[in-house]
Amino acid sequence: MSAAHGPRPPRGFASDNASGIHPEALDAIAAVNDGHADSYGEDATTASMAECFREHLGPAARAFPVFNGTGANVGAITALTRPHHAVICAAGAHLDVDECGAPERIAGVKLLTVATPDGKLTPKRLDDGIDWHRVGDEHASQPRVLSISNSTELGTVYNAAEVAALAGFAHERDLLLHVDGARICNAAAALDTSLAAVTTDAGVDVLSFGGTKNGLLGAEAVVFLREGIGEDFAFVRKQTTQLASKMRFISAQLEALLSDDLWRRSASHANEMARALGGAVDGIEGIKLAQPVEANGVFLELPPEQVKALEFTETGERAFHVWDARRSIVRLMCSWDTTAEDVEAFAERLGTTIDK
Amino acid sequence: MSAAHGPRPPRGFASDNASGIHPEALDAIAAVNDGHADSYGEDATTASMAECFREHLGPAARAFPVFNGTGANVGAITALTRPHHAVICAAGAHLDVDECGAPERIAGVKLLTVATPDGKLTPKRLDDGIDWHRVGDEHASQPRVLSISNSTELGTVYNAAEVAALAGFAHERDLLLHVDGARICNAAAALDTSLAAVTTDAGVDVLSFGGTKNGLLGAEAVVFLREGIGEDFAFVRKQTTQLASKMRFISAQLEALLSDDLWRRSASHANEMARALGGAVDGIEGIKLAQPVEANGVFLELPPEQVKALEFTETGERAFHVWDARRSIVRLMCSWDTTAEDVEAFAERLGTTIDK
Amino acid sequence: MSAAHGPRPPRGFASDNASGIHPEALDAIAAVNDGHADSYGEDATTASMAECFREHLGPAARAFPVFNGTGANVGAITALTRPHHAVICAAGAHLDVDECGAPERIAGVKLLTVATPDGKLTPKRLDDGIDWHRVGDEHASQPRVLSISNSTELGTVYNAAEVAALAGFAHERDLLLHVDGARICNAAAALDTSLAAVTTDAGVDVLSFGGTKNGLLGAEAVVFLREGIGEDFAFVRKQTTQLASKMRFISAQLEALLSDDLWRRSASHANEMARALGGAVDGIEGIKLAQPVEANGVFLELPPEQVKALEFTETGERAFHVWDARRSIVRLMCSWDTTAEDVEAFAERLGTTIDK
Amino acid sequence: MSAAHGPRPPRGFASDNASGIHPEALDAIAAVNDGHADSYGEDATTASMAECFREHLGPAARAFPVFNGTGANVGAITALTRPHHAVICAAGAHLDVDECGAPERIAGVKLLTVATPDGKLTPKRLDDGIDWHRVGDEHASQPRVLSISNSTELGTVYNAAEVAALAGFAHERDLLLHVDGARICNAAAALDTSLAAVTTDAGVDVLSFGGTKNGLLGAEAVVFLREGIGEDFAFVRKQTTQLASKMRFISAQLEALLSDDLWRRSASHANEMARALGGAVDGIEGIKLAQPVEANGVFLELPPEQVKALEFTETGERAFHVWDARRSIVRLMCSWDTTAEDVEAFAERLGTTIDK
Repeated sequence: MSAAHGPRPPRGFASDNASGIHPEALDAIAAVNDGHADSYGEDATTASMAECFREHLGPAARAFPVFNGTGANVGAITALTRPHHAVICAAGAHLDVDECGAPERIAGVKLLTVATPDGKLTPKRLDDGIDWHRVGDEHASQPRVLSISNSTELGTVYNAAEVAALAGFAHERDLLLHVDGARICNAAAALDTSLAAVTTDAGVDVLSFGGTKNGLLGAEAVVFLREGIGEDFAFVRKQTTQLASKMRFISAQLEALLSDDLWRRSASHANEMARALGGAVDGIEGIKLAQPVEANGVFLELPPEQVKALEFTETGERAFHVWDARRSIVRLMCSWDTTAEDVEAFAERLGTTIDK
Repeated sequence: MSAAHGPRPPRGFASDNASGIHPEALDAIAAVNDGHADSYGEDATTASMAECFREHLGPAARAFPVFNGTGANVGAITALTRPHHAVICAAGAHLDVDECGAPERIAGVKLLTVATPDGKLTPKRLDDGIDWHRVGDEHASQPRVLSISNSTELGTVYNAAEVAALAGFAHERDLLLHVDGARICNAAAALDTSLAAVTTDAGVDVLSFGGTKNGLLGAEAVVFLREGIGEDFAFVRKQTTQLASKMRFISAQLEALLSDDLWRRSASHANEMARALGGAVDGIEGIKLAQPVEANGVFLELPPEQVKALEFTETGERAFHVWDARRSIVRLMCSWDTTAEDVEAFAERLGTTIDK
Repeated sequence: MSAAHGPRPPRGFASDNASGIHPEALDAIAAVNDGHADSYGEDATTASMAECFREHLGPAARAFPVFNGTGANVGAITALTRPHHAVICAAGAHLDVDECGAPERIAGVKLLTVATPDGKLTPKRLDDGIDWHRVGDEHASQPRVLSISNSTELGTVYNAAEVAALAGFAHERDLLLHVDGARICNAAAALDTSLAAVTTDAGVDVLSFGGTKNGLLGAEAVVFLREGIGEDFAFVRKQTTQLASKMRFISAQLEALLSDDLWRRSASHANEMARALGGAVDGIEGIKLAQPVEANGVFLELPPEQVKALEFTETGERAFHVWDARRSIVRLMCSWDTTAEDVEAFAERLGTTIDK
Repeated sequence: MSAAHGPRPPRGFASDNASGIHPEALDAIAAVNDGHADSYGEDATTASMAECFREHLGPAARAFPVFNGTGANVGAITALTRPHHAVICAAGAHLDVDECGAPERIAGVKLLTVATPDGKLTPKRLDDGIDWHRVGDEHASQPRVLSISNSTELGTVYNAAEVAALAGFAHERDLLLHVDGARICNAAAALDTSLAAVTTDAGVDVLSFGGTKNGLLGAEAVVFLREGIGEDFAFVRKQTTQLASKMRFISAQLEALLSDDLWRRSASHANEMARALGGAVDGIEGIKLAQPVEANGVFLELPPEQVKALEFTETGERAFHVWDARRSIVRLMCSWDTTAEDVEAFAERLGTTIDK
């Protein structure tokens, strides 16, 4: 990362994947770029990365690096299902609305969605939102996986007890619990717990572990958290196009993230910036937080003219993502490299334009 | 890459993807790691990378970065076909034997293979090897794509005239010509031509452009070389899990490879090392080149006891890949970082063990 | 069909596919069972069946016999889409809830559903229920087909003007209009129009024409109603396992249905029986029609104890289908062989048990 | 079937599915066309059909009626595999060359083919023809099913010992043995054994039982022959579009075929006619049997001018199927309704045209 001469212009909040590579992650890539290594994961870096995951997520954890979140989610779902199965998720889950139908096309499954106000499923909402009478009926896709996102697409967080309640609900019905953890680090950091506390220890079966949104170049992992599931995943990963040849460079990133608390440092910082941003704008007249700020995202109901006025920063970077055009809700994501100055600059612009 | 103190031990020839990242590619990644950039390809680096491809492959070229070769091949095939189509390729093509059935599963197509002695299809072999009477018969998958690898999986190279002959053959039958160009740089370098000469100018419709085996961390591209095909590829790429969020880091690698002749410098070097290796071992008694050395691969018939004796280098690295256990043929791949010392060391070990 | 000695016991209303084969359809099968005929549709019966469809649905109509409704719907959708497309339908549509996820698995598409009180989509409901901002966004499945059922799964009917309004809505957005016509005969009969009036003439692009529920042994057809769509359907039908070898026996059934007004006679009778049934029970205290009776189905809100008491007829046949266990709604379907005595018998049983 | 007035003109040998419905099968359909029956297989006829299969194929046999052979084969394969699996079959197997790629598209698997001179696989041919070194290699589709056709597409027959040898070979390698039994009745009749002798008792795991080519209107069954496989087949059948609503009419046909030895009477007759046909033409100069006549098919090498001269019967029916245009081989199939007069008429025409 180049050192700035003088204060740099403020950055936007379009997405946590608009940010770059954390220096420690880039260093980790360079550090393993020494000579030859067996490809496709038969290298020493991948072995030590896998060990890292076992330390964080328990001795049964088997981590498989993949390229991106879609690959992790689709691979995990494919490993757990047959095509006549259904995957239950919250309406608006990334899996449902932002994968261009990849789960249906690749795994062949149907998604069954349940409406929520805050992106979070509960046993009650699942009881009401799914027609459980169809279990065993050959005309209906059969629920097999319950998939939740933590933190959610609306910036909310499931705590360990909430996850455990869903795991119990799922296992009673012979479902497996999958966590789309594109932002699992933000969730664990927000709760000030270990990664295991909201996953393995809470009864999660499979985790899509996200690294890219938390400072990596591009690295995620499908992690099976207990024995007896995902046993053919090596083949699933290859056949779903997610097997990296020079895997050491993916593994090195993941290992860096799990080392020296980089995952927590980066995620906590992003969360803190989001809290600061939420706090800074909450008092402004005409502005309403559309969701509580629990992780690294801030959802604002903003008058349409403000949306238009503020959409781009002074350097032309996208300032936020228009989340719901009809309800005029925008999403601002903080990341490992968001600064207090970025937050202040946005709050100031917002205050100024609103005051007009 | 760490500087070696004293001479480093010789490297193996297991695969060109056992090598690391070329310093210029790693520098290119670091160079764009500055602040924020719009994700999913809406960034300036991706725009200039696309321009680079147009300069190399013609003004109609539309390049879409993807993660790996499987993703490139499967995406390209998916974009060009409907599931009742067939893709014709050489028996032993990577597409057929090394993608774990991804083309069938993802695109839904059937592969029709044609036997070759050297990995190369010709109009004559296609005439004889495919039952063209089935065209129009609803019981049979309908040929729609002809896919060749250049350089081939056997280290041989199609020259521009040979590619043009296949393009003519394909287009006469309403087929599209796809090139699996995981090693297209090695082919063009071997022929001492431009990249366009063996692709766009020779009538190729779609190219899987390979960067990873030629010194990148992990970057390939699907490149449509003329108008009117692949128009929905943005959706295909996303749905087949190959859309990178922080795309600038993929694009930067590809741009680096296409800049300052890096693609040719690296590929020519690898080719030259292969030629040297082939030459060094060709005279040894009991050793036979199983294929002519035309690009960066050397295929040797080696007595089984030699296979066993030489399989690993002194540092435990895999020395070669056992290509055909039954015929005792091994494959040695040279890469951008292979040195004359590596070649000599192998030839010497070979000579020594054979002499015994 | 065996002649009954004395009055037969009353029949149930579980489904219109619990009824048998209309004698005219069975005779038609026997009539073409004479010697050999070319298989897979190259026979004279299939040719004259196709002509029959052109007479009913216009000169551009191309009819492809298939085995069942799932096959017709999935085949039609597959012919019209690429896997990154979405199909819009009413929540609760057969396509969505009763095909065990076949559209997703076979065509690869996503279904986008819109809530309705009566099973009927309208331009307004489509405007509100679909996020049209996602059109062009590579992260979202792209709407390509609008699919409606006529008559609907709730026994309601779209008239020609309503269909035409949806066709206009669809075509403006570059969508195609598909009609799941498992009960299209009931719809046309209810409206007292021709089959073309509610399909071809109203702008429908593709029709799943249903015969099985209207007195056939097992015969449906995918009918493309205008040029330029479904051009590869012969291959789609074969690859989706729906090509009959002895097709003459499927075609003969369809031809019989379209001859001598059999389609209308059978459907009108079923509709009339449903009206009679609705009328007979409507006045009974505690009973409420859950939907207007517009075709051959009657939906009743029935006290749970009645559901239990009446679920089977005296001969052990299922009397009705429990449509919505939570809201205690049952569905009664009339068919070509329902008699006034069957209707009276049910109404009487209902009255008696309710009176208790 | 209408009675002919005077001798009818001779029939052709294009395919055994050019023949019509055996009168006993048509009677069986009419016999169950009495009143209502629960749909989707919950009827008494389906129950007794299933019992019939248990009597013929052993107490563990679970038979699922489907519409056609493609549906049976694809359903069986889907039930036994995951998409990264491979199915091994003979080159030229119906599964490979006549399903328009349905196994690949629907089950997602790859087919691995082994060349044979006579359509029959053997342990030796499998040992040589498959690269067993790829087992466990994530880059290659993993063999999971061995599929053979009995009788084969070339009219040859596996006897019980040959099937048992393949079952042993398969089970040693953790493969399942599937039999495409579109003509299993012809095989068992030719061997003069029970159906079980060449299936269940020989170690077959799953059978696609064919009825259509042996005199039914259209009825096949997927039959799982032992416990622990195909447990989710009810869902697979539905999702692959092969669940019949009025199933009693499919089941009645199958039951009729398995009753009173109809299967054997019809198949033996067809086999006998083929033997007669083979015998009648074998001596004619210039004519060569391309395969031994073991079931109901006769393969002839015929001079191209004869192919042209004889392609249609005097009534315009197709006389045979051109099996291999390049080698000038034609196929003649006999069926339950082939007569000695049909055979004589063809032999006479052949003799006459050849003599010219």
